[in-house]
Amino acid sequence: MTTQRLVRRLGGLAFGGDYNPEQWDKSVWEEDDELMRRAGVNLATVGVFSWALLEPREGHFDFSWLDAHLDRLHANGIAVDLATPTASPPPWFTLAHPDALPVTADGTRLVHGSRDTYCLAAPAYRGAARRIATVLAERYGDHPAVAMWHVHNEYATLCWCEHTAAAFRVWLHARHGSLDALNEAWGTTFWSQHYTSWDQVLPPRATQWHHNPGQRLDFSRFWSDEALAAYIDQRDAIRAHSDRPVTTNLMVPGYQNLDLWAFGREVDLVAIDHYPIAPGVDAAADIAFGGDRARSFGGGRPWLLMEQGANTIYAGDRVLAKDPGEILRHSLGHIAHGSEGALFFQWRQSKAGAEMWHSAMVPHAGPDSRTFREVTELGEALTRLGEVAGSTVRAEVAVLHDSDSWWAMDVDGLPSAELDYLGALRRAHRALWDAGVTTDFARPDDDLSRYRLVLAPALFLLSDASAENLRRYVADGGTLLVQHFNGVVDARFHARLGGCPAAPLREALGIRVEEYRPLRRDERIVLSDGSHGTVWSESVRLEGAESVAAYTNGTAALTRHRHGNGRGWYLSTRLDDANYAVLIDRLLAQAGVAPDLPGLPFGVEAVTRHAPDGRRWHFVLNHTAEVVPLPEPGHDLLTGATARELPPGGCVVLRLP
Amino acid sequence: MTTQRLVRRLGGLAFGGDYNPEQWDKSVWEEDDELMRRAGVNLATVGVFSWALLEPREGHFDFSWLDAHLDRLHANGIAVDLATPTASPPPWFTLAHPDALPVTADGTRLVHGSRDTYCLAAPAYRGAARRIATVLAERYGDHPAVAMWHVHNEYATLCWCEHTAAAFRVWLHARHGSLDALNEAWGTTFWSQHYTSWDQVLPPRATQWHHNPGQRLDFSRFWSDEALAAYIDQRDAIRAHSDRPVTTNLMVPGYQNLDLWAFGREVDLVAIDHYPIAPGVDAAADIAFGGDRARSFGGGRPWLLMEQGANTIYAGDRVLAKDPGEILRHSLGHIAHGSEGALFFQWRQSKAGAEMWHSAMVPHAGPDSRTFREVTELGEALTRLGEVAGSTVRAEVAVLHDSDSWWAMDVDGLPSAELDYLGALRRAHRALWDAGVTTDFARPDDDLSRYRLVLAPALFLLSDASAENLRRYVADGGTLLVQHFNGVVDARFHARLGGCPAAPLREALGIRVEEYRPLRRDERIVLSDGSHGTVWSESVRLEGAESVAAYTNGTAALTRHRHGNGRGWYLSTRLDDANYAVLIDRLLAQAGVAPDLPGLPFGVEAVTRHAPDGRRWHFVLNHTAEVVPLPEPGHDLLTGATARELPPGGCVVLRLP
Amino acid sequence: MTTQRLVRRLGGLAFGGDYNPEQWDKSVWEEDDELMRRAGVNLATVGVFSWALLEPREGHFDFSWLDAHLDRLHANGIAVDLATPTASPPPWFTLAHPDALPVTADGTRLVHGSRDTYCLAAPAYRGAARRIATVLAERYGDHPAVAMWHVHNEYATLCWCEHTAAAFRVWLHARHGSLDALNEAWGTTFWSQHYTSWDQVLPPRATQWHHNPGQRLDFSRFWSDEALAAYIDQRDAIRAHSDRPVTTNLMVPGYQNLDLWAFGREVDLVAIDHYPIAPGVDAAADIAFGGDRARSFGGGRPWLLMEQGANTIYAGDRVLAKDPGEILRHSLGHIAHGSEGALFFQWRQSKAGAEMWHSAMVPHAGPDSRTFREVTELGEALTRLGEVAGSTVRAEVAVLHDSDSWWAMDVDGLPSAELDYLGALRRAHRALWDAGVTTDFARPDDDLSRYRLVLAPALFLLSDASAENLRRYVADGGTLLVQHFNGVVDARFHARLGGCPAAPLREALGIRVEEYRPLRRDERIVLSDGSHGTVWSESVRLEGAESVAAYTNGTAALTRHRHGNGRGWYLSTRLDDANYAVLIDRLLAQAGVAPDLPGLPFGVEAVTRHAPDGRRWHFVLNHTAEVVPLPEPGHDLLTGATARELPPGGCVVLRLP
Repeated sequence: MTTQRLVRRLGGLAFGGDYNPEQWDKSVWEEDDELMRRAGVNLATVGVFSWALLEPREGHFDFSWLDAHLDRLHANGIAVDLATPTASPPPWFTLAHPDALPVTADGTRLVHGSRDTYCLAAPAYRGAARRIATVLAERYGDHPAVAMWHVHNEYATLCWCEHTAAAFRVWLHARHGSLDALNEAWGTTFWSQHYTSWDQVLPPRATQWHHNPGQRLDFSRFWSDEALAAYIDQRDAIRAHSDRPVTTNLMVPGYQNLDLWAFGREVDLVAIDHYPIAPGVDAAADIAFGGDRARSFGGGRPWLLMEQGANTIYAGDRVLAKDPGEILRHSLGHIAHGSEGALFFQWRQSKAGAEMWHSAMVPHAGPDSRTFREVTELGEALTRLGEVAGSTVRAEVAVLHDSDSWWAMDVDGLPSAELDYLGALRRAHRALWDAGVTTDFARPDDDLSRYRLVLAPALFLLSDASAENLRRYVADGGTLLVQHFNGVVDARFHARLGGCPAAPLREALGIRVEEYRPLRRDERIVLSDGSHGTVWSESVRLEGAESVAAYTNGTAALTRHRHGNGRGWYLSTRLDDANYAVLIDRLLAQAGVAPDLPGLPFGVEAVTRHAPDGRRWHFVLNHTAEVVPLPEPGHDLLTGATARELPPGGCVVLRLP
Repeated sequence: MTTQRLVRRLGGLAFGGDYNPEQWDKSVWEEDDELMRRAGVNLATVGVFSWALLEPREGHFDFSWLDAHLDRLHANGIAVDLATPTASPPPWFTLAHPDALPVTADGTRLVHGSRDTYCLAAPAYRGAARRIATVLAERYGDHPAVAMWHVHNEYATLCWCEHTAAAFRVWLHARHGSLDALNEAWGTTFWSQHYTSWDQVLPPRATQWHHNPGQRLDFSRFWSDEALAAYIDQRDAIRAHSDRPVTTNLMVPGYQNLDLWAFGREVDLVAIDHYPIAPGVDAAADIAFGGDRARSFGGGRPWLLMEQGANTIYAGDRVLAKDPGEILRHSLGHIAHGSEGALFFQWRQSKAGAEMWHSAMVPHAGPDSRTFREVTELGEALTRLGEVAGSTVRAEVAVLHDSDSWWAMDVDGLPSAELDYLGALRRAHRALWDAGVTTDFARPDDDLSRYRLVLAPALFLLSDASAENLRRYVADGGTLLVQHFNGVVDARFHARLGGCPAAPLREALGIRVEEYRPLRRDERIVLSDGSHGTVWSESVRLEGAESVAAYTNGTAALTRHRHGNGRGWYLSTRLDDANYAVLIDRLLAQAGVAPDLPGLPFGVEAVTRHAPDGRRWHFVLNHTAEVVPLPEPGHDLLTGATARELPPGGCVVLRLP
Repeated sequence: MTTQRLVRRLGGLAFGGDYNPEQWDKSVWEEDDELMRRAGVNLATVGVFSWALLEPREGHFDFSWLDAHLDRLHANGIAVDLATPTASPPPWFTLAHPDALPVTADGTRLVHGSRDTYCLAAPAYRGAARRIATVLAERYGDHPAVAMWHVHNEYATLCWCEHTAAAFRVWLHARHGSLDALNEAWGTTFWSQHYTSWDQVLPPRATQWHHNPGQRLDFSRFWSDEALAAYIDQRDAIRAHSDRPVTTNLMVPGYQNLDLWAFGREVDLVAIDHYPIAPGVDAAADIAFGGDRARSFGGGRPWLLMEQGANTIYAGDRVLAKDPGEILRHSLGHIAHGSEGALFFQWRQSKAGAEMWHSAMVPHAGPDSRTFREVTELGEALTRLGEVAGSTVRAEVAVLHDSDSWWAMDVDGLPSAELDYLGALRRAHRALWDAGVTTDFARPDDDLSRYRLVLAPALFLLSDASAENLRRYVADGGTLLVQHFNGVVDARFHARLGGCPAAPLREALGIRVEEYRPLRRDERIVLSDGSHGTVWSESVRLEGAESVAAYTNGTAALTRHRHGNGRGWYLSTRLDDANYAVLIDRLLAQAGVAPDLPGLPFGVEAVTRHAPDGRRWHFVLNHTAEVVPLPEPGHDLLTGATARELPPGGCVVLRLP
């Protein structure tokens, strides 16, 4: 409903970006109006970093400048995604509330001078954030320019201060019920950590050796909940005065501090920022990975690409520039996977400040530039694609993904530093993407019955209920692949005793893992079927399963088991990419899953969007430098003509008959 | 005497490990009783991490649970190594005594949440540690289950807090006598560091550039003394109430914060924890290195392997699993070098807590596992070896080893970061081990006359008295090899002037080192005899010695000199392993030192244990994957039959006629 | 005038080094007297680290020991460069003024125990430094031994404490005039950093993400000014009591915290410390680089090599020893580029303290050593070169160099971490040195008309005035090469809009850079002329220039443009060394610049010194291992005979007819 409302308001797909007119003067605003019209912009995110201007003194507000900009945008036909500016408290806030500054695990109190210099758990910060969200909603809740609300910006920071400690204790009390239960959950008999009063319990600050794993995991859970509560504070303050949809822009996939499933439930529309840095085809796979996650977090609803880079993107120690054509092709990649448009950070490249090198729709060089020309072409293309707005994407395969396992795998001292939660997820998704198959992400306790194939590449932590859910999925006819070091700890971070994975799942797999034998760095082993493994190996005992590939000592490395109406596979090492692809293809064939558009070569992506009324469109994106014929001709929305082939780097959006 | 008493009590070799029943419930205790009997366990270390349970409030003790476990173990025929729990103060201790938390060199105060979160120099900590040791000794000093005492756990941590500073000043006053002497010793005229009152003197906390080397060295000496004093505190408190032997488990070889020679003098029995991580033969050499050091620290007396890993062992960023057979072969390696048994950390793998991935005798998978089966086989083997208990190991070769040089080489800003104290010691020991020769470690001021060959691979710091001791050793007929950058500073960390090494030693070597010329990283030079050097070179002037191998500019690299009845060799570069082995073999031949059991191929180790009554046993361990015939058949205690060969990975313990 | 006075006083070139007699006793002083005479020492730097002895209690001074040493040196015919000891406050200072200790960006307060443990902005420190400089000048201002003053030692440290914050605010107020101007300059509208009171403004302390670039740049400028003010404090205190020249020893080239151009204006004679660590010919090029910079900072006047190493030099993680002959050849290299002598740190190697491994004229091994013998030979050589004292060096080529660009390029988050200010400067200088051409450094706002060729390898920041200065230089007939990512920001760190470099310079180059496209690490591209580029590429549009070499997509990589009477070249990538050398040779030929002494092979350096009266000398240094014939015979001052060739590693100083 929310999405439909936004679609109606915009009359199609969203196009635009962050707009910070307060950094410029009047002559630039006038040029902005003209250039936005020329580019076809219909949505601008305003006010993300404007707290210092909106509230120049504590409790004193100045809306005059913002009034003028909203009116100007509205007059220019551009809807506004109005932000609360709480990601960047002004310097006066620090001086008035030094206790609200963030503190690192080793006790360093960070100061203002960049952004995000607050502790989410500090009452002074939360109060100030709620206040400014409230006054903004009061003033602009019904403003005709405002189409949606953008709470905060990229919730991502952590804190270990005293306010955090106090909030952590409240959270722990609520979760565990008693100190006895906490002691039991964290196994505090080890290393003499038994707590006898709540004030002894701390966040995992700098200590002598490893932290308690239960403490670490609970701190991750707590912090995500705290961030979500901070979001809900503002959302509810806004909803009291405005009926426009509310969201916050989430970072995918790097940041793991938040349980994005939980955020997905609380936002009116999932919005993500995505800056892929891989070259060529890999960037396209990353866009698919981010888009499939965003869509899944929102329960399959359309979502919105809130930020992308127009040209150069930070890649660790440098920026990398987009090649000609990638502005369009990458944007179509996001939309193919369910985005309701393509927005950028930001409209005009800042001439000063910490992100002055962050590329923008209007670069330093000005509108007479390749970047702005391609941005304009994108605007035209999106106008032609208006009919796909509001449609969705469907998948028959799911990769299991939950924050508990990710956080648990982030704890120090696991049996191998090469265990890599996100990497395992990416590999599974990539193998499916290479096979031309559209993928959902799902939680291990979701109803999985709609999927023909489910992959569990990294469920290190598995609750009793989820283990039983997976067993039942197989028994009911599903095909499940579980990979190494999965189901090893329960929801309290207690080891599963008697062998892994967790018991009811073992039944579905017909195996029992007796010991794990991590490989040395760069060690590479050969299995009986000629495939190669790295990183990890295990001693697997067959309890009903058959061995499909074995280690050199003859014990099983890859197994297959019939359970009920389905099949459970277990892979106890990390296969090389090519061998893993062969396995995934075999599972797809067995499960009867076909590509959205069969017959395309490597590097050409096809995804289908489905409208509620049954209309469908194939997005076909050629990420290669070759001319690629289409399996059959079709009507291309981008040109309005019949397309028979894709030029190098070219794209078509085919309306299906 | 102490060892004999323990041997009598156990009726042979010790077998068992750390036992933490407080982490489990009654059903597990019952299984423990049964499995310990099945495995042949006769010694369990109890209470290492139980402070929080023993003293739930400051000064209030609860022994009921410990009483029950000791009675149960005793009833099951298992002796107890009772630990004081002082390595892990409970959370309540921190809240009551925040000043007793450790502080890093840059001023970060660490918090509780792992273990070892105390400052050894803090009066509150020392008082609390003494108190709990006293009450434990009062209650259990005569308990029939208690066979020995285990003070603390792995003294290893450092601190730079105000308590440390105060204790450091007291120590410095005692060592130097006056501030003038301190100023002279530390050379404080340089960089204007002259102290005019004691309160100006600090531990080497974070400062702008390099620390004063004398300050660094004295801080290392002080801290080791402080840790030893902390041990003696508890030992004496226990001795007041118990006549059972007292020790503490020392970490070898990684930790260098303690002078283990000094600890060796104060414990009733040297006990070490050893977790070798190298693969194959290298692990065996590491076990020999640790064992020979442990034996030497105890003055040649038998010692005890207090902790080893049953399966996986932490190796930096991952754990590595033992291969089948290594539980037995590694344990026999320790015993061959003088251990009175084989203990593990721990009996049962923790299901939670920071060391939940640390392997154990009963793994997560339970007793139906390879690990527990091999543990049981080891228990049976140790029973058959009972007669070797109380015997010792003898050596004709010594490697010089002292903490002052190690600490001195740890100071920043030495002429090369590739100078490596422990590495040099390991190389010397390894070359002798490869040659089949059993090695002692000795201090440079020890009476060395019982050794035919002495190696000084890393005596960077050499006192006047030790230099004269080494000269006399040569004059009296010994063979001595001194290696590069030795004898360079005196006991105050003052450079030896006029050329190196220290003067009386130069006489024995017949050379004078005029300048050192460190090599660049990865630089490799060729000497006149075709051997290769790395890391280091020197300008050596002959003052009586002959050049055995020369640098390309013709000056001497390796020299030999007759002094009195002996020979002094000097090696001024770091030879490649193979060239170094050739040199060591040459020195062994010259000194008339033969292997314990000649005729064995590479990777097969033989060590002899000698009973006071003249009985002897050859431990012969095959670390290779080949079948190896024994030089002559013998009676093997492990099988009770005549052994003629060793299977791959196999071991025999031959009783000599 | 100052230099001439020093030359008159010394009767030729300076020779000697830091002399710290307070570290030794009387017997050593007597040997020092003898050895200094033997070596020909005529200048000794005294007192650098003697604060603790000179002022044992705050405000109480003890000059007796220093009186004695100065009298002794004077009696021995040795002039004194008297130091103020302010680089190393004594321990009592810390206890009395803990607020004057330095604080790191993350808030760690460093303690005494090394040197430089003060904050330059702390009033207590500045007062104490002024006081001791004053009393030294009062006492020794007219002492006959004192030939010059040596303020402090290697100003290099930073601080982020509250005193620093206060001084930074004063500086910012003076620079910007108002808080509004500061907000505008720093672009504080971005990330909501708008300041509403001065006390909100902080040094760039630890914060959550990137700092504001304007804040970072201004902090660098402020700190350099603060250090200069600290120098001027002392200089003026000395000048009130002494007419001898005053200087401070500057570190080149590693340290970038100071604007050495500004120091060059305030010292009576530029003095530098230089410790080249590269091997062979590279060390010689580094010496030339340092010498040309030192000369240029002093406006072309002769300068003084205040410190060099006699033998081993710290090279990161180890020291590296000089080869035979390098003590002389390196010293002549410095003198060839304008040094008025050759001094060392230090006379006698310390036997203790943090720099005990720093080599010296008299090493640990004593005077019977290669090092001291070569030092003595150097002393003899310098005596023979007396006539060159007071002469200068001239250049027809300049490399542009300014601190603003260096500091600006040190800010986090630039488009590539491989942008390297100093590296770019070194490469340009090295290409000229390899071509046999003597080079000046110049500021972008200097009058450049005396140069035939100007290189701008790294002018990332370029003011409007400098951009116009460069344009005019070309218009007036100069040849200018501008390299990639130059002229990108203005003096406030605001991006140049509309394309780079800054507008008036674009006119001279006939190009416009539309976008930069940094290359990936290790990426290597080929240009149309076969040359290779790394690190960086750009999209360059021709606006009058011609393309000399193009990227594979056909756009220009290297361009040439006629503007007025000159030519502007633009290079938009980082050429490989060999390709860059070809380009530089081409520019030299076009600009009509020839080597000082044509006809010498690679690795043989020739530089000409010019006396005010027209006399000239060629310094010809053979850095190769070959015999090299001179282009024509000449009278060699070093031998007093006619030289026809250079032996391997040999040097001549030819008096020109």
